This record gives sequence, C-alpha cells and structure tokens, in this order.
Amino acid sequence: MLVNQRQYRTIWPEFGSSDVSPSFGMVNIIDQTKLPHIFEVAQISSLEQMVVAIKTMQVRGAPLIGAAAAYGVALAARQDASDQHLHFAASQLIQSRPTAVNLRWAVQRMLNVILPLPIQSRLQAAWSEAALICDEDVLLNQAIGAHGLQVIRQLHPERPQTINLLTHCNAGWLATVDFGTALAPIYAAHNAGMNVHVWVGETRPRNQGASLTAWELGQHGVPHTVISDNAGGHLMQQGKVDAVIVGADRVTASGDVCNKIGTYLKALAAFQGDASGKRIPFYAAVPSPTIDWSIENGVQEIEIEERHADELSWMSGKLADGTIASVNILPHGTKVANPAFDVTPAKLVTGIITEHGVFAPHQLNTIRGK
Amino acid sequence: MLVNQRQYRTIWPEFGSSDVSPSFGMVNIIDQTKLPHIFEVAQISSLEQMVVAIKTMQVRGAPLIGAAAAYGVALAARQDASDQHLHFAASQLIQSRPTAVNLRWAVQRMLNVILPLPIQSRLQAAWSEAALICDEDVLLNQAIGAHGLQVIRQLHPERPQTINLLTHCNAGWLATVDFGTALAPIYAAHNAGMNVHVWVGETRPRNQGASLTAWELGQHGVPHTVISDNAGGHLMQQGKVDAVIVGADRVTASGDVCNKIGTYLKALAAFQGDASGKRIPFYAAVPSPTIDWSIENGVQEIEIEERHADELSWMSGKLADGTIASVNILPHGTKVANPAFDVTPAKLVTGIITEHGVFAPHQLNTIRGK
Repeated sequence: MLVNQRQYRTIWPEFGSSDVSPSFGMVNIIDQTKLPHIFEVAQISSLEQMVVAIKTMQVRGAPLIGAAAAYGVALAARQDASDQHLHFAASQLIQSRPTAVNLRWAVQRMLNVILPLPIQSRLQAAWSEAALICDEDVLLNQAIGAHGLQVIRQLHPERPQTINLLTHCNAGWLATVDFGTALAPIYAAHNAGMNVHVWVGETRPRNQGASLTAWELGQHGVPHTVISDNAGGHLMQQGKVDAVIVGADRVTASGDVCNKIGTYLKALAAFQGDASGKRIPFYAAVPSPTIDWSIENGVQEIEIEERHADELSWMSGKLADGTIASVNILPHGTKVANPAFDVTPAKLVTGIITEHGVFAPHQLNTIRGK
Repeated sequence: MLVNQRQYRTIWPEFGSSDVSPSFGMVNIIDQTKLPHIFEVAQISSLEQMVVAIKTMQVRGAPLIGAAAAYGVALAARQDASDQHLHFAASQLIQSRPTAVNLRWAVQRMLNVILPLPIQSRLQAAWSEAALICDEDVLLNQAIGAHGLQVIRQLHPERPQTINLLTHCNAGWLATVDFGTALAPIYAAHNAGMNVHVWVGETRPRNQGASLTAWELGQHGVPHTVISDNAGGHLMQQGKVDAVIVGADRVTASGDVCNKIGTYLKALAAFQGDASGKRIPFYAAVPSPTIDWSIENGVQEIEIEERHADELSWMSGKLADGTIASVNILPHGTKVANPAFDVTPAKLVTGIITEHGVFAPHQLNTIRGK
C-alpha cells in the first residue's frame, strides 16, 4: 500500500545495487514501534537482529511475523547453512514469540524446503522460499479483498453514496505483507473508486486502531475517522454504520470469532441494529488457516490471554515538543485486568470472508479441508 | 468519603480559626484537574476564582457544579451584596458552563432567597443557603445509596461471597458534594461490611473511570480493578459481573438513560447476559430531578453533544520522572469524532435507583411530581 505516495510492502529483501549475490542480502522492515509518529525503514542483516525485531514488535501481526521468521532463516543460512545452525536459528525464531502459530509454521516450512538440499544450495533456496511465503500472503489477502469487495458492493446498490464501514484494531496491511485481512476489502473498494469511509475504533488498551489503522488508511488516502471504542454503539444506533468488518485471531468450526477485546461489544451493537431495528451486518475477514476446526464453542473452549497491566496504565504518544514519551494514566498502585481477546458467538456474525469466498457461520464447513 | 484516612466533602466553606464572621469566608475545593496524581485542596476566595474553577473543571459533575455556583454567589455577596452585583455574579456563573442545568438552578435558588432580604442580611443568608444546597445533595445521595443497597443485597442472598459490580465513567462522590449517585449504593454496601468489588471501565476519551473513579474507590478502600472499556462485555459473558450500575445525565419519562458514551454497549452486554444466557441487571442511579418528563423517546429526541477532538487525541498522565504531561496518540492530522453521550433504550434497563426508591422504567411515572 502507499506511504508518502510510494508503494510499499511491510517486508522486502535487498541485495545491494551492484552485487545481486544472495550472500550479501539484507531484509528491510517498516519499524512499527515508531508508528504512527515516525515512518522508518529498518535494515535487518542477521538472525539476531530479526529475533530482536520480532520480540520488540518492530514487526507484528501473525502473517507478517511468519514472513519475518522465514527471512530470519535466510539470514541465518547466510551466516552458516549447516543443519546445526539452521536448527539453532529455528529455535531462536520460534522462541521470540512462542504463541505465534504462523511463525512456527513458516519456520518449519523453511526447514522442510532447505534442509534436504546440499549446503551450497541452501542460501539461494532460503531467499526464494521466504519470498514465496510473502507472495502467497499477498495473493491470499488479495483474494479476501476481492470477495469482501462484493460484500461492500451489495451494501448500497446505488452509488456514489458513501459506504460507512467500522473496524476494530489493526487487521490492515501492516499486520500482513500487504493488503491486510479486514482492510483488504476496504482497500479493494477504495481502489475500485467506491466512496468508502471507515470508522476506526481506537482499540484500547494498545491503541492499534488509533495508531496503526488510522495511519495506514491515511497514507493510502482512504477517508476515515477515529472514534473512542465507546462510540461504536452510538454510531450504529444512529444509522451511521453500514457494516462492521474485523479481523480475527481464531475462528471456530461453528463460526465463533475470537478477536481483539471489544469486538464482542461491536457485534452486539451491530446485531441490535439502528434505531429502527435494522440489523447491521458484521463480518470477520480471515485467511482460511485461521479457522480452528478442532473447536466448536469458542466462548467455552478458547482460553483468553491476560496481558500485562502496563498496556493499560502506560500510554505512548508525542509530547507537544515532538518527543515520543509514555505517561501513566492510573492512580498509583491501581489494580488492572487486561484480557486481550474476546469471543463473538456465531449467532452475531453475518459472514466470514475468506480467500475461498464469503460464508455464513453454519456454511463454514464447506471449505473444511480446502 | 475518605482521602488519606480523613473524611472529606468535595466542597466546604472555611471562616478562619479565630474569626467566624462570614465576611472572611472562603471556600475549599478538591482540585480535580490534578487527580489522580496529586490530591490538592484549593482555596477559592472570590467570585472570579470560582468562575475559573468551574470553567477549568477544577470542580465538575452536575451536583458539585451547582454547589460551587451557590458558594460563588456567597463569595460575590461578600464583595458587594447589591442587586446589581448579584445579578452580574449570577450571569458570570451561569456562563461558566452554559449547558449545566443544575448550575442555573442553584444560582436561581440563591437569588430567590437572598434578593428579597435587606442588603446587610444577604451575606449570612447566602452562606446558609449554599450550605443547605450542599447538605440536601448529601441527603439525596444517601437516600439513593440506601435504596441501591437493597438492590445489591438481593443480588447474592448468601454472603460473604464477593459481589462484582461494573460501573462506567465517574458518578462518584467527586461528582457530587458527597457519596455520589452510581457509587452511593456501592459505598453503602462497602460501609455495611459487604464484600463488593468494582470493575471500573476506563471511560475513554476523558478517562474519568481510570482516573477519578479508581482514585476515589482506592482512597475509600473499596476493592476495584480498572479495565479497558472494551473488556466489559467479555467479563459479563464470562459471568464475572453481578450487576452494572451507572449514573446518568438525563433519564426520559419512559426510562431511556442518557449517559457517558459507551454506556449503551455495556447495557447491550448486560442484556445479552452470561454464557448461559442469564441476564445481568443494569441500573442507573440518579436524583429524581435528572428525569426529564418532557421526553419520551431518548434515542430520537436527545441531541448528543459532540465534544472537542483533543479529548481523544491528547492523553494526560505522569511521565516516568513524575512530571504531569500530555501526549498526542494519533497520526498527525487524523480526523476524530467525539460524541460525548449515548442513549440506552429503556428495554435494556432493569431499574432506575432514585432517592424515592427503585423503579422499573415503566413504573417511573409513579414518582412524577414528587
């Protein structure tokens, strides 16, 4: 997507201007810890640097972490392509975010491809496979975008009326290699010339909506307005939202949606609808591997991660003089609870937008095994 | 309520240690702009200072603003008790927060009492009437607390199980002269020896929950935990909330509740209930003058105030070195919408707790004219 009028991905390799040998390759990432105040590309030239980038969340979002880990294996192979070193690299990368399923999957895929090869062929193969993982993610998200575009088109048969969409957290291109999941349909609609406007929920406690989603929509030129998470219900009641589209960390076989804390409240308000009682459609957009076929009842079976109190009590931003700083907003010693996700029951979900198409929760089973 | 183990009201007069003449009276207020980080009592000794205190929200909350304005008239009478000066004072005070109905009511009541008196009697009468306004507010809130206590007692017949209550924004003693409205039943239950625990919603964008409610509950020793506004629905779904109690800026004749933005989402989640479908009771606690008998349909008829974007984009808190500072959390130039209130339809409301008792929305009419 666009940043300062230029097309970017969140991660891309660079082999120098004159020397295209893979032995000098580096990896560029957008340093997301500095957003939305500073746009900075960081160069990652070793396994150790990539582990730090993942740990400190310079890269974040499940698909992007997977891509970053794949390039981490390539950087490790540049240093030493032996079995022993690659296994060491794999364990270092996996431990950098132990709960990230996508990261583990990407690292395993890299090893499966390059370990059978002779040592001298491994580096070139590693760079190729990492690039393939990235390109596949982009294609997947473009397919989600294309199917979601049809959903958006059907919201208002008569254009050029503005279509108001509400999203929560950041499931945009910054969380993937490009295009994003929840935002892919929105970018597709915008790029197709439709008048879309996005209500961006701030998404406390980590503010990914106010910082990342607002920033990436702004850079790409998509009209949007940031609101407090509290305002979503009121806007829906007042008929100012045509549909809600969110991402998801996990979707169950029955269509329950586990996503960033607060998603459930938006789904309740959408189900309640506007003042006339007209229901507002609520969609989750996900790549199909996000569907966990082993779970039926998300409310009962999904364990919700409790994250650190500091995420709520400390708020990062820019002082009046431009310096980046954090302030503590709570009375000294206040106890905090910080459940990071919640589960929206399938009965509140209109559809799941995937790369295979859009499915009502009870139809999800038709793509099982695809 | 307690601050540093000492009993306080939010506002009280002081006449000096040796000289009890009203001509030397001053008014003490808790400077709420410095909470929760600094507890500071400010002395207000003139009409002008009181106007500034109201304007800058050193005092806030409808009942407290009314009390402050009443004392503002007394301070004006100390300077000059003529008709002309008192009318000037009244207009200055009313203009300090033009939409505050309670302020206008208190100023008018002061004029009605003192203007008919000879000039030399006016100052003493003004101090007395302002004190009476304060004492009446305290009694009103104690009555709300007593009726609300019965509601809390009925939640769990078998003590000493902990009763978990969720509140939103600050409708505590800091918003009144003492005891508060939504928090009055909670203080009553705590003071009666019941085990109550309060989930305190942060209440973006102005964070009155995280700053004021958490501070006052902490000072009074009531167990509580701050959560993001997004977490309320999840906690209710998981059966961790026994009842929701909020204040209200306005209640309609039909029982619709207009309160701080985000209240509606909590009411939806309470109505949806826990995972077994058991509805969680949702109460608004208000003095009966908060009921607007002229309005039936709150969703359609109440105009919602749109407040300044800075409330959302700037966040105030304490830097690591202890300095109070504000940071901007949004990308440069981001558009913000900031509706300050929302309306919870009566069908989601279990009861309205007033000084006359607790009433289901459809029973509210029984106290009309009381």
